Amino acid sequence: MEVDGKHYRTIWMEGGVVRTINQPLLPHRFEIVDLEGYEETAGAITSMLLRGAGAIGAAGGFGMAQAVLSAPDDGAMEYVDRAAEVLRNTRPTAQDLFYAIDRVWGAVKSLPRGKMNEAAVAEANAIADEYVEAGARIGEFGAALIADGARILTHCNAGWLAFVDWGSALAGVYAAKRQGKKVFVYVDETRPRCQGARLTAWELCGEQIPHAIIADNAAGHYMRTGQVDMVIVGSDRIAANGDVANKIGTYEKAVLAKENGIPFYVAAPTSTIDMNCPSGDDIPIEERDDDEVLCMFGKTEGGAMTKVRVAPEGSAARNPAFDVTPARYVTAIITERRMVKPGELRALW
Amino acid sequence: MEVDGKHYRTIWMEGGVVRTINQPLLPHRFEIVDLEGYEETAGAITSMLLRGAGAIGAAGGFGMAQAVLSAPDDGAMEYVDRAAEVLRNTRPTAQDLFYAIDRVWGAVKSLPRGKMNEAAVAEANAIADEYVEAGARIGEFGAALIADGARILTHCNAGWLAFVDWGSALAGVYAAKRQGKKVFVYVDETRPRCQGARLTAWELCGEQIPHAIIADNAAGHYMRTGQVDMVIVGSDRIAANGDVANKIGTYEKAVLAKENGIPFYVAAPTSTIDMNCPSGDDIPIEERDDDEVLCMFGKTEGGAMTKVRVAPEGSAARNPAFDVTPARYVTAIITERRMVKPGELRALW
Repeated sequence: MEVDGKHYRTIWMEGGVVRTINQPLLPHRFEIVDLEGYEETAGAITSMLLRGAGAIGAAGGFGMAQAVLSAPDDGAMEYVDRAAEVLRNTRPTAQDLFYAIDRVWGAVKSLPRGKMNEAAVAEANAIADEYVEAGARIGEFGAALIADGARILTHCNAGWLAFVDWGSALAGVYAAKRQGKKVFVYVDETRPRCQGARLTAWELCGEQIPHAIIADNAAGHYMRTGQVDMVIVGSDRIAANGDVANKIGTYEKAVLAKENGIPFYVAAPTSTIDMNCPSGDDIPIEERDDDEVLCMFGKTEGGAMTKVRVAPEGSAARNPAFDVTPARYVTAIITERRMVKPGELRALW
Repeated sequence: MEVDGKHYRTIWMEGGVVRTINQPLLPHRFEIVDLEGYEETAGAITSMLLRGAGAIGAAGGFGMAQAVLSAPDDGAMEYVDRAAEVLRNTRPTAQDLFYAIDRVWGAVKSLPRGKMNEAAVAEANAIADEYVEAGARIGEFGAALIADGARILTHCNAGWLAFVDWGSALAGVYAAKRQGKKVFVYVDETRPRCQGARLTAWELCGEQIPHAIIADNAAGHYMRTGQVDMVIVGSDRIAANGDVANKIGTYEKAVLAKENGIPFYVAAPTSTIDMNCPSGDDIPIEERDDDEVLCMFGKTEGGAMTKVRVAPEGSAARNPAFDVTPARYVTAIITERRMVKPGELRALW
């Protein structure tokens, strides 16, 4: 998408360097970061310098390509295997990470050393390109569900920053806008890391789409009082039975949508679906640092980026980064192939 | 309750001065503020220097007493009537505010000027004392519901800071602790103003009660995964049909509790029940400033109290301070008289 009139992808590779948008600085500062090797790319995934299903996937693929490029001629496979483990251990929930690592690994493992570099870079770039294409297709399917004048609630950021371009949940919103439909987006701020207030709101400002940021607590109020027509979210992993792991709080919004008769859509490429994972109970849920809950990060009036502590020094937090929404709360899953009921995932292949 | 070994009430009156804890500075700084006249007391309610059903009620009563004390001999009734209007217009949702203003007004309106001062101060003090007594009684009833080892979720702050002492929802937790029961409290941080992370957590630290602060988004996750035994919250106004207005997000937690078969209790004195209000649809919901959602207030590493902006400059917010939980989600209402089903409020009188 465009930033100040120039087109950017969320993440791309130039030579052996992975370049990506520094997401923790948004919306206050737009800055591109260079990740010089696979270790730096792995670190960027863990620290959430970049985040979001497809962006993590693309980073996993590019990180593998970096590992191949830096592998010694002697013992290249062992080196890349170790790098793959480092990349796999960055975050446990996001299925796209494993999908992309496996794809690059599969593209190079039977090749002679002399052909590995080109193949790895090509495969990583293909993965990134496919995320762009998938986002565009998901956007078409999503837009078909969005009526003119629709009031849409979204949680977290499943926009272009969470992918490589377009996004998943927001792709439909962008496509609907381009079709001339009027839309209004309720943006859950999405504590603790506020990807809604920081990233989704920033994306919507860029696309000039009317929106209001709300406390996550207010989503139910707007649903109950008839002010929300549909909910669209992304996903970090979808189990074979249609259970959906996504940002913490998604489950709450799904239950409230069902209780109020509001359709609840999950938009995700098929790469997010883990058919080897029978149900949501089998999806590992990442627990992140207490400080994400106990503190907040933002810009002071003077313009400095500062962390402030909200909670008492004597209090601890618990901080699950994701939750599982059972399939029965999901109206449909919008993939790049087509829209399916959560119980019909097998029909996608 | 005790702060650093000394007993404090949340709010009290000395001469013509209302003294109260400066709640926005908690948990980082404990400071008593003097409110010199009813205008300052009204301002403190509006700015949320003090907040919480009973604390607002007590402030309304004390503010009325201040108005009577400062009323001219000539035209005293008109002066107090205008002051009552100023106090009434501070916040629209909290029923206890109107309850206390009406009580002090009723206690003085038929008296000669010479007897008004003493009567007004006595009535305001009686109201405050009754909140203390009601909290203690609600605590007894609440503790009877809390099993040894119970894991309790609470939203916002319905502790002693929200009343004059003891509190409503937390009163039961404090009484259970004194009975030797082990309890664990999940503290919803309660965006946007974080009364959970700031005030409830601070109270629980003071009472040495094990707890964890969670993002409001995580409450559903802990309920769905069987880690919450009961939910207890306070209320700002209860309609005659048992619908409950309380801090934004309460409705979400109530729906999630019902969906997961977890009892959902509302603890409130009878002064919070508005029998003239037929249903929750008739309760005015206060909409507060955008900045509460777009920004956060806390303490920097250097110790300064600072506001940071999280959201883009181009984004607006919507900020309803309360929501309505329909009676069908409420297991029971715990009052100082007894516990009742939400549909049986008339039986309390």
